[in-house]
Amino acid sequence: MEDGFRLMWRDLLPIGRHEATGGYRRHAWTAADAECRAWFAEQARGRGLRYEVDRNGNQWAWLGDPAAGDAVVTGSHLDSVPDGGAYDGPLGVVSAFAALDALRDAGVSPRRPLAVVNFAEEEGSRFGVACAGSRLMTGALAPESARSLRDADGFVMADAMEGAGIDPSALGRDDERLARIGVYVELHVEQGRCLADIPHAVGVASAIWPHGRWRFDFRGEANHAGTTRLEDRRDPMLGYAAAVLAARESAARAGGLATFGRVRVEPNGTNAIASLVSAWLDCRAPDSAVVDALVEEIAEASEGAEVTRESFTPVVTFDGTLRDRLVGVLGGVPVLPTGAGHDAGILAAAVPTAMLFVRNPTGVSHSPYEHAEERDCLTGASALATVLADLLGAASATSPPPG
Amino acid sequence: MEDGFRLMWRDLLPIGRHEATGGYRRHAWTAADAECRAWFAEQARGRGLRYEVDRNGNQWAWLGDPAAGDAVVTGSHLDSVPDGGAYDGPLGVVSAFAALDALRDAGVSPRRPLAVVNFAEEEGSRFGVACAGSRLMTGALAPESARSLRDADGFVMADAMEGAGIDPSALGRDDERLARIGVYVELHVEQGRCLADIPHAVGVASAIWPHGRWRFDFRGEANHAGTTRLEDRRDPMLGYAAAVLAARESAARAGGLATFGRVRVEPNGTNAIASLVSAWLDCRAPDSAVVDALVEEIAEASEGAEVTRESFTPVVTFDGTLRDRLVGVLGGVPVLPTGAGHDAGILAAAVPTAMLFVRNPTGVSHSPYEHAEERDCLTGASALATVLADLLGAASATSPPPG
Repeated sequence: MEDGFRLMWRDLLPIGRHEATGGYRRHAWTAADAECRAWFAEQARGRGLRYEVDRNGNQWAWLGDPAAGDAVVTGSHLDSVPDGGAYDGPLGVVSAFAALDALRDAGVSPRRPLAVVNFAEEEGSRFGVACAGSRLMTGALAPESARSLRDADGFVMADAMEGAGIDPSALGRDDERLARIGVYVELHVEQGRCLADIPHAVGVASAIWPHGRWRFDFRGEANHAGTTRLEDRRDPMLGYAAAVLAARESAARAGGLATFGRVRVEPNGTNAIASLVSAWLDCRAPDSAVVDALVEEIAEASEGAEVTRESFTPVVTFDGTLRDRLVGVLGGVPVLPTGAGHDAGILAAAVPTAMLFVRNPTGVSHSPYEHAEERDCLTGASALATVLADLLGAASATSPPPG
Repeated sequence: MEDGFRLMWRDLLPIGRHEATGGYRRHAWTAADAECRAWFAEQARGRGLRYEVDRNGNQWAWLGDPAAGDAVVTGSHLDSVPDGGAYDGPLGVVSAFAALDALRDAGVSPRRPLAVVNFAEEEGSRFGVACAGSRLMTGALAPESARSLRDADGFVMADAMEGAGIDPSALGRDDERLARIGVYVELHVEQGRCLADIPHAVGVASAIWPHGRWRFDFRGEANHAGTTRLEDRRDPMLGYAAAVLAARESAARAGGLATFGRVRVEPNGTNAIASLVSAWLDCRAPDSAVVDALVEEIAEASEGAEVTRESFTPVVTFDGTLRDRLVGVLGGVPVLPTGAGHDAGILAAAVPTAMLFVRNPTGVSHSPYEHAEERDCLTGASALATVLADLLGAASATSPPPG
């Protein structure tokens, strides 16, 4: 398994890496994304797996007959946030192929089809909607909305997908494909430090916190920064600053997370008081009521900012039977929640779904400094192989393990 | 005078106006700037004035022989900040031509040459250095620094000027031209409300506050906004927010102005904690010691931000004899200071210089909503004609008025 893992990793690492920052810029339907997708297709063909791209642009590699149904599916995504790390997404796809190799090497003869999947545009870093590929497949994102999403340069998603060889008119809920999936297991690098200081390199997910994005528009009046008396100003930067500090205070008090990481200022001139500050709040907490209360508190501190909810994903609790089965077959590994959204969170609404997390020693993610030790990654891939072997030996993912 | 003023205004108004915002985007050496410059050349030629472009790209229209020396010069600039107003700059140029027309109509026979000037890139909105044309002419900006200034798209100023027909190798201090100037008078719309509620539509400048620009770099660590515990974060947005609020508080206490109007965030993703927030502080006060103290206070509140001074202009006190002469000839108009930089502030280091301000009812400037009433503009142009007539009748700008 080690050699195969290293070879795959070596081939993927240079793709879309920005020289100056060391971060990855693998945004959906760009040249870097196309290279990642070509890599996936090559991995499928090199293993003699049946390769498919579904109607929503997700890539599939099948061992066994897809039409047989009740398939065990594993994978993740290959796209990245701006200047993201190497592991977020790709570790799940590489581990999926490595686990498949391990099962074949061990002579496991699956009773169910097995598929490796790469979901399109998981990060939403280009067109703004996270998990676009899995949302389209499950019907959580309407095809007409998806087609008209625009990136920062004004390109619409329909054109971007068409440029990558996907027919945008065929987007939408894919019941036939969903009906084939018996269970989905996604391995992901942990985006936090729960596993960092304990003797387990792998954990199983319990739930994904409810989370969403809100746009705060602070409106003021453009004016000359060098001549306008303080008392005559309507400077929206002050309201924004108050909101940033309120977000941190409220989140700490409520036990949630609230972050302003994206800002747009007009006219953004050194000697001009801003006329408009738009800022995006990312807010998450263990339950939806806390998220709602947090956003309300921050809005109140924002001195009349206009607040627009751009997206919201309710709490996802993964299938309890499946989760317990994974914990058992892996010999009692920890169970942990996460604040991050994943395709597994979208799939969970349609099929029994589970996630494995691999230790992240610093907890850093969405950054060029994201890191995982190779030995922990290999432990993760082995754990995934153990889980898949167990699931493939059974007729149904949620029935008890044989013996 | 009224008809000529209105005709000039009507021709200038459509140039470089952005349809959506209603603001002007007349940035140096762009197509809109070229249109403004063509308008200036046409005004000169239409009046039979001698038209010249100096080595630093400034435009001149001469009545009388430039080589005679001791000239009375008046004018301003035609470029704008991003989405600026119609009056900041152009009012001074239009009023200069209108005053010249009035003098001719009145049969005044000047004892000294008279010139109207349009200084290049006063706002510094493209290449970052305000008053580039007048600074180059007086030697306050080194030609090699100017040539290599870059705009946001990476174009260097040398190439931009060359594209507009200026030879960048000839830039630099122009002693021959400076020696011809006896006095410089610039009329400008007020950027504040000192004249708004008093019975004077025109005032005379006493001084320009010392002012400068400082870049604050707040460094943190990029990380996932949905999974990184608050206690594990290094979020530079918090330091920036603290600095914004501190700037306002300190400025109010010190009687100065301190503004953050321009911000750049990396990576600027909704679900990513920022790794770097760069923000520009514009700071001004009645004297340099107050500016220094203000910047120091704001830096202290900024939790370790790296602070770089990008520019600083010391206090400018306009020639006292000339100022008193203008006040006298205009019948005792108010004298007021300003926080805004002007070409007149640069020229003041080389020749006797004065400024006239025209009432701005709202005080708004650097904004599409900047406005001045036509009757106040005409009062301003008449006042300028009165001042010019007085100066042209005398052998030297700083000698007492005749009679």
